[in-house]
Amino acid sequence: MTFLAELERTAWTVEQRLGELLAAGETTPPGGAELGEAMRYAALGGGKRLRPFLLIQSARLFDVPEEQALDAACALECVHCYSLVHDDLPAMDDDAVRRGRPTLHVAFDEATAILAGDSLLTLAFEIISAPETREDPAIRADLLHLLAKASGWRGMALGQALDLSAERRPFSPEETAAMQALKTGALFRFACEAGAVLGRADQRGRDALKSYASAFGQAFQLADDLLDAQGDAEAMGKAAAKDADRGKATLVALLGIEGAKGKLAGLVTQAEDALKPFGGKAARLIEAARFVAERRA
Amino acid sequence: MTFLAELERTAWTVEQRLGELLAAGETTPPGGAELGEAMRYAALGGGKRLRPFLLIQSARLFDVPEEQALDAACALECVHCYSLVHDDLPAMDDDAVRRGRPTLHVAFDEATAILAGDSLLTLAFEIISAPETREDPAIRADLLHLLAKASGWRGMALGQALDLSAERRPFSPEETAAMQALKTGALFRFACEAGAVLGRADQRGRDALKSYASAFGQAFQLADDLLDAQGDAEAMGKAAAKDADRGKATLVALLGIEGAKGKLAGLVTQAEDALKPFGGKAARLIEAARFVAERRA
Repeated sequence: MTFLAELERTAWTVEQRLGELLAAGETTPPGGAELGEAMRYAALGGGKRLRPFLLIQSARLFDVPEEQALDAACALECVHCYSLVHDDLPAMDDDAVRRGRPTLHVAFDEATAILAGDSLLTLAFEIISAPETREDPAIRADLLHLLAKASGWRGMALGQALDLSAERRPFSPEETAAMQALKTGALFRFACEAGAVLGRADQRGRDALKSYASAFGQAFQLADDLLDAQGDAEAMGKAAAKDADRGKATLVALLGIEGAKGKLAGLVTQAEDALKPFGGKAARLIEAARFVAERRA
Repeated sequence: MTFLAELERTAWTVEQRLGELLAAGETTPPGGAELGEAMRYAALGGGKRLRPFLLIQSARLFDVPEEQALDAACALECVHCYSLVHDDLPAMDDDAVRRGRPTLHVAFDEATAILAGDSLLTLAFEIISAPETREDPAIRADLLHLLAKASGWRGMALGQALDLSAERRPFSPEETAAMQALKTGALFRFACEAGAVLGRADQRGRDALKSYASAFGQAFQLADDLLDAQGDAEAMGKAAAKDADRGKATLVALLGIEGAKGKLAGLVTQAEDALKPFGGKAARLIEAARFVAERRA
């Protein structure tokens, strides 16, 4: 199976499982159905499901079958979707379109979007803490602790707070990179580390995956910044060149387009090197790093 | 020690520990300090800390010392504080004053309030999942699962969604009560059940506490509705009689003031009866039920 076919197959599997986890409750009281609908709107029907893919593939390095990593992968996707919903809010980035559809607060309303985001975040913890996700409670507690740290006030949420503060004070390329390492990097690192936890990896395996995830996250972001700089609004499905408008200098501004492309190639090599200890088993993860570096949308 | 002194002592202990858990990080990047400040603004310096009190006292029934229940109690308070921050937002209840101070989005800004709420919720899961909270990972995973269910899309968040929907369609007293059982009741039930989990209680002990918590939550809410109906805006520190304005008929409207007072006394008896199996050990929890039924603010 090609990489793209495997990525799409995983996305389909995640979509199905998310649909089950978000299935409408039969006991929802009158007036309460909208919250679940809004959560489904935000979490289903789109996205490459890159984070779940990374988690599942990382777990595979330690021979954890997909079905034993799937729920943790879905929980991670819930956190990602919650972050998109809240980031899109009028008080935050004020985006009206996401993945070619109206954002949640446009399709529903602001209050519902806030609550649906809150609920997707909470659901992530509900899913991982469930015995079905993994019988061993030590693994569940470990995953929950890592996820909370990755997404909270020292992780992703801090990244978003920093991002907003860039509207008040211009960011240097280094500051932008530090912000991005939190805002988007933290969940990529969790994805890979969670695979290691699920697979009861030793410290060496865990460190290798953390190193890979760090290079992967930077490559993802740099490719995003390159796309942004080249300003292909249609391909992105969102307003392009918005970041530069908001006073965040990126590495692209520092290095130039060609320099940034060179840096990107270096990051892919770094990701590949980090996974050397796993040999051929890591082929999919290496393809994933190449994929995000080369993406055009 | 009188009940009130014990309640205040617990509130002080919770305040100290929350202060430690929310201590400013030394490594916060420039521009990132505001998020932590906003979280501290929302979580510190106020509140009776009723939920932590219930959790600590419930755990005590099973001889769990306070220091072994304290972190779970603080995590619960983080969830409560997050819910207040988000409920106060302009898109939700649009409240400008809380506990006699400007609400978080007024004191800071809306984006920071959304993020600080998100982060307090996430921090709750970070705290409970930490090995320091409880060595046994099975207890941590259990607590996390209960907390996620109590606060999420089938619990507290659903209650808030229902509450908002009352603006579109008037609620009967029964519908209002069902909404309140989720919006405020769910966390009270978690408080008591968490004490049972921490104490490795058997099903009988757990059921007794759930029954107590249910009566406690209803008494809390009915007392609130009575205060609301009697409309003492100053004593409440928030806009009074607001609920009736928003089309939510409460039990007070159904039963009248005197009828509601009779119902309230019945709920206190129900709370007392539920704890009979624990004998004199349950004295503080019984006092707590009387306290919320009699409160004037």
